[in-house]
Amino acid sequence: MSERRLCCAVVGATGVIGREVVSILEERGFPVGRLRLIASGRSAGSTMSFKGELVMVENLATVDFRGVDVVFSAPGASVSREFAPKAVAAGALVIDKSSAFRMDPDVPLIVPEVNPEAAFRHKGIISSPNCTTIPLVMVLWPLHRAFGVKRVVVSTYQAVSGAGKKAVDELLSQIVARFNERPIEVKALPHQIAFNCLPQIDVFREDGYTLEEVKLLEESRKIMGIPGLRLTATCVRVPVLVGHSEAVNVEFERPAEVAAVREILSSAPGVRVEDDPGAGEYPMPLDAAGGDEVLVGRIRADTSAQHAINLWLSCDNTRKGAALNAVQIAELVFGVGPLQVSVVS
Amino acid sequence: MSERRLCCAVVGATGVIGREVVSILEERGFPVGRLRLIASGRSAGSTMSFKGELVMVENLATVDFRGVDVVFSAPGASVSREFAPKAVAAGALVIDKSSAFRMDPDVPLIVPEVNPEAAFRHKGIISSPNCTTIPLVMVLWPLHRAFGVKRVVVSTYQAVSGAGKKAVDELLSQIVARFNERPIEVKALPHQIAFNCLPQIDVFREDGYTLEEVKLLEESRKIMGIPGLRLTATCVRVPVLVGHSEAVNVEFERPAEVAAVREILSSAPGVRVEDDPGAGEYPMPLDAAGGDEVLVGRIRADTSAQHAINLWLSCDNTRKGAALNAVQIAELVFGVGPLQVSVVS
Repeated sequence: MSERRLCCAVVGATGVIGREVVSILEERGFPVGRLRLIASGRSAGSTMSFKGELVMVENLATVDFRGVDVVFSAPGASVSREFAPKAVAAGALVIDKSSAFRMDPDVPLIVPEVNPEAAFRHKGIISSPNCTTIPLVMVLWPLHRAFGVKRVVVSTYQAVSGAGKKAVDELLSQIVARFNERPIEVKALPHQIAFNCLPQIDVFREDGYTLEEVKLLEESRKIMGIPGLRLTATCVRVPVLVGHSEAVNVEFERPAEVAAVREILSSAPGVRVEDDPGAGEYPMPLDAAGGDEVLVGRIRADTSAQHAINLWLSCDNTRKGAALNAVQIAELVFGVGPLQVSVVS
Repeated sequence: MSERRLCCAVVGATGVIGREVVSILEERGFPVGRLRLIASGRSAGSTMSFKGELVMVENLATVDFRGVDVVFSAPGASVSREFAPKAVAAGALVIDKSSAFRMDPDVPLIVPEVNPEAAFRHKGIISSPNCTTIPLVMVLWPLHRAFGVKRVVVSTYQAVSGAGKKAVDELLSQIVARFNERPIEVKALPHQIAFNCLPQIDVFREDGYTLEEVKLLEESRKIMGIPGLRLTATCVRVPVLVGHSEAVNVEFERPAEVAAVREILSSAPGVRVEDDPGAGEYPMPLDAAGGDEVLVGRIRADTSAQHAINLWLSCDNTRKGAALNAVQIAELVFGVGPLQVSVVS
């Protein structure tokens, strides 16, 4: 443990993920020397609390990154693309949550439990993966090492917080409108989300896949270092506030007994097996919300294919799916804090 | 079209499905001579409206089925098991929505668009499949005939109405409780469903699958007449009132181009293709609710396996998933009503 204290900046500080970063830095005792909160001009001048003190939000347009050690970046991709090179030029390490740099060969895409060693090859920017990718690779990676992943079919059940504060407010206000028989307004998401499921997250490509589905494939390949990984996904928004879930079907190269799968996942870092269905125990987004771990359960043999299993996972998309992973990347790179990451060589 | 009018009985008349049967009989102009509404002692004596007239609900315990042509049966399986043989002995055809007789080799399990011919081999009881099975086989069957289904991976997104009126009330009252910061009560479903997803529908077997997941496999095999069908499922309850959705991955024996799949489904009876994702057009439970068709979209090639596609469907679980299918079975067997079924030999 280093005694060094770091000057930290949070860009997009007033959003769902930015706020979560601030709260996780405090909660984990990250060695923050100075905390700078940065947002768009709209939020600049407002204040947020950190360790009992009020910090004023600065305007990203005019901010000077000199002296900043690490930037936790959680705005949209276009904003990241614009400011991150400036922050790097000023000497900061940018840990970016957006999709801006994830597939850039010069930018490591890191889940500390899966590919920590790659983080140290950064050139000023490290990307944190999409909120559906992180829990998936945390479960697939240890299983891949044991049995060899052959093909994966994923269906997601994603919370509105993944689409930001506006989508959270929209779900709640649509419910209120329905109870009061008032017209339902749709703005933040493509259709009504209250009492509905939307099989669309992000925009569509020509081939019929959404960018969310493409990200899940491409990011999983990059993080696990399996360029030919066969994976297909359907990503769906559900009326849940916090917590993404995924129904995952995996075919392995080699025999994978359910007991062995369960044992491997039980000792996988950052993963907690909740799998006593007879007692009503399985992962649910409500239970994952607020926690640090990827919950995994409903592990069972799939006899429709050779060496196949089904499982179900839930994970707090705002924490391990986003803010926590970013903070853990910083802990890893700076060798500070309660490093819960076991580096696998 | 026959001029004959039938004496119809609805058992479980006051439940979600029973009420839907009554409304569909009226809406489709089913040739009802007399309508008898039957329920447990608790509901007996209450009245329901049919074609502008009030009908008194009779007590199942004391009812005499003589003179009844067709019974639409929508109580739980144990109740069906008890009363159905008596109704058959009294000369009625029982169309049963419960799981009681579905896998009985002497009982046809019918989706009129898929296996109409089997309906005529009944011995007094015809079963209507589970609400997730019906839309799935309506989509799989025409594709199987064209390309041969090799393996199916399904994840479901099921509405609370599938668990009855109590579950609908529970979702709504849990939301109200949350908005008012009152304690949330859990009774009808195993856990809180408001703002949550439950990867449990029905009870668990030793092998980790729920009966809902087993039904989807076994019923699909029986209806399509493919005893070796390879299919695996994860069934999940979501906070939706009406409308089940399914993310379906299918591997075929033979090449299945997306355009050909779309064309086949476009002419499949009871199926409507809604597949213009760029324009935000895809199936959603809110759009399926109240309608008769299985909505299918997000049809796209899956390059992770040979001859594979992904698709997404939504269907009103209380109508085509239950009540409508039962009424259509009666239309088929009695040759009455606006028979929208094309019998495929």
